[in-house]
Amino acid sequence: MLKSMKRKALSGEWALIEEIRRRAGKPSGAVRLGIGDDCAILKSPKGSDLLITTDFSLEGRHFRRDWHSARSIGHRTLARGLSDLAAMGGRPITAFLSVALPVSAVRNHGWIDGFLGGFTDLANACDAVLAGGDTSESPSEHVLADIILLGSAPTGTALRRSGARPGDDLYCTGSLGGAAAELAALGRSPRKFRTARATDDHPHLFPVPRLKAGDALRKRGLATACLDISDGLSSDLAHLCESSGVRAEVDAARLPLHPLAQALGAEAGLAAALHGGEDYELLFTARAGVKMPRTLGGVAITRIGRIVAKRKNAPLMTLIAADGTRTALTAQGWEHLR
Amino acid sequence: MLKSMKRKALSGEWALIEEIRRRAGKPSGAVRLGIGDDCAILKSPKGSDLLITTDFSLEGRHFRRDWHSARSIGHRTLARGLSDLAAMGGRPITAFLSVALPVSAVRNHGWIDGFLGGFTDLANACDAVLAGGDTSESPSEHVLADIILLGSAPTGTALRRSGARPGDDLYCTGSLGGAAAELAALGRSPRKFRTARATDDHPHLFPVPRLKAGDALRKRGLATACLDISDGLSSDLAHLCESSGVRAEVDAARLPLHPLAQALGAEAGLAAALHGGEDYELLFTARAGVKMPRTLGGVAITRIGRIVAKRKNAPLMTLIAADGTRTALTAQGWEHLR
Repeated sequence: MLKSMKRKALSGEWALIEEIRRRAGKPSGAVRLGIGDDCAILKSPKGSDLLITTDFSLEGRHFRRDWHSARSIGHRTLARGLSDLAAMGGRPITAFLSVALPVSAVRNHGWIDGFLGGFTDLANACDAVLAGGDTSESPSEHVLADIILLGSAPTGTALRRSGARPGDDLYCTGSLGGAAAELAALGRSPRKFRTARATDDHPHLFPVPRLKAGDALRKRGLATACLDISDGLSSDLAHLCESSGVRAEVDAARLPLHPLAQALGAEAGLAAALHGGEDYELLFTARAGVKMPRTLGGVAITRIGRIVAKRKNAPLMTLIAADGTRTALTAQGWEHLR
Repeated sequence: MLKSMKRKALSGEWALIEEIRRRAGKPSGAVRLGIGDDCAILKSPKGSDLLITTDFSLEGRHFRRDWHSARSIGHRTLARGLSDLAAMGGRPITAFLSVALPVSAVRNHGWIDGFLGGFTDLANACDAVLAGGDTSESPSEHVLADIILLGSAPTGTALRRSGARPGDDLYCTGSLGGAAAELAALGRSPRKFRTARATDDHPHLFPVPRLKAGDALRKRGLATACLDISDGLSSDLAHLCESSGVRAEVDAARLPLHPLAQALGAEAGLAAALHGGEDYELLFTARAGVKMPRTLGGVAITRIGRIVAKRKNAPLMTLIAADGTRTALTAQGWEHLR
């Protein structure tokens, strides 16, 4: 836990802890006791289940400091956890941030300010109170972060991956392939993106967790299964199919390509939409015939395929082209920085 | 969260996830849904506060693979979090483990087996169900872990650092300095310790979180303030004094030295007890005159000093030698592996 260690002051970590504490603000709402003791103390939410998720954000695996601005890294670190909550239809309660910095970053107040600024701007926008965490000096030159999100959903209502049934329709929120397309552009000329801000549309640098859409899906009882597209549509749809014991068909022509993916051309754009990771949209199923709104929580909803029964020797996922050609769709979600 | 990612199978991470899932077992008790979805789902405990703590365990900072066995690293990773819960008088609900392994360790099934064995043996002994986490390939040659513990305590009863008042007596559980003494021996000849097991007394390699003692302190209303000695008595006592707005006096002759610390000789033994970190005993205060049991939760309780009022120009902490000599005690907890 974040403790006020004298010895850590020597390495400059003290400034980091104080800055985190300052930005976290005073405990309020569900938080009885925030940073500064052995544990944080939270009120247990009545009539609700607790949702918990943890996600690493490791330099060289999930981001690069020579590509991503400090603000983007802070935003993305938190967004990974918030998107998991969104996928269950949960509402954030608190976030815990564990972060280990190399000495060079500990002494770089501008970097810390940007990182915590990106983090807290998103936390404030999503009502995710920072209630604790841990700090350390990194054992290498890598910035290491782990985000822990606690959320809640009324008892028994959280959306799961396992509820899809044959006959259900398949939907996604927003648009696909934008994150992969922006990442490719980022890799070509990182300097162009140094001043990118969360207020503009930056699907890779500043993804928007679909908390409102997930909450609306849960409250209105629309989804039979749901998860977020973090690894790429093909990988995450495979998870949904495996968890639910079903197969899926995807209509290529229906996929809502992000303008950045469209700009890649037909083939590369489709690949980005199918296999590009980190779009952080929601992928969900609903009973056929259900009246699905065009938007949920301010984001477009698109029907992109259907769920079918398992059949021996049939592929788990099938891609249907505009001309009706059917090909097996294989999980090819990839890790961008490898 | 731990997801079944096909692409990760390529790097061997799949085996790690499956092994973690196998050892975690089926959801039960408070866990509605464990590993395999976007979030874990927990029942919200009725009539209780939630306690949450996170602690990094980073190779090169908190352990060394050439010194510590895989079992010890797994045990210590979890013990850090459990000890924070013990310090609040909390009972464990679930643990979440984020772990990033370098390729060399991912392919070393013996190492993974030892690490998870050390982790789950302690988890089972303390009723801390593993309910999720995250896995990644490490961006360096370092094993990186982050432990998240959720616990509970009846509403409003969790022990804090801030309740000590002038006139209170100062106590600790168990014995002090053993961890620092064993670490010194470990550094001299790591090979001697390769087969050390948690069933024997190994204060550094296999510390025992004082959950039962903390629970008894809370239930019986004995402690006015409490924290765990993770950074060393002098550092953690400073935290208690700062949080409570008081000063403390420590009687050197009363300090319960671990036999390994005694064997260092008088001066080095005292230094290990005062400044050696990671003893994971509890440091607490109680009203003077309270009838304090000799043992709590099976561990010895020793009165080691007293709390006094703040006074201008007086040191935060004073060490009183057997002959009555008073010296200022300064926080000198240190990080072992630097």
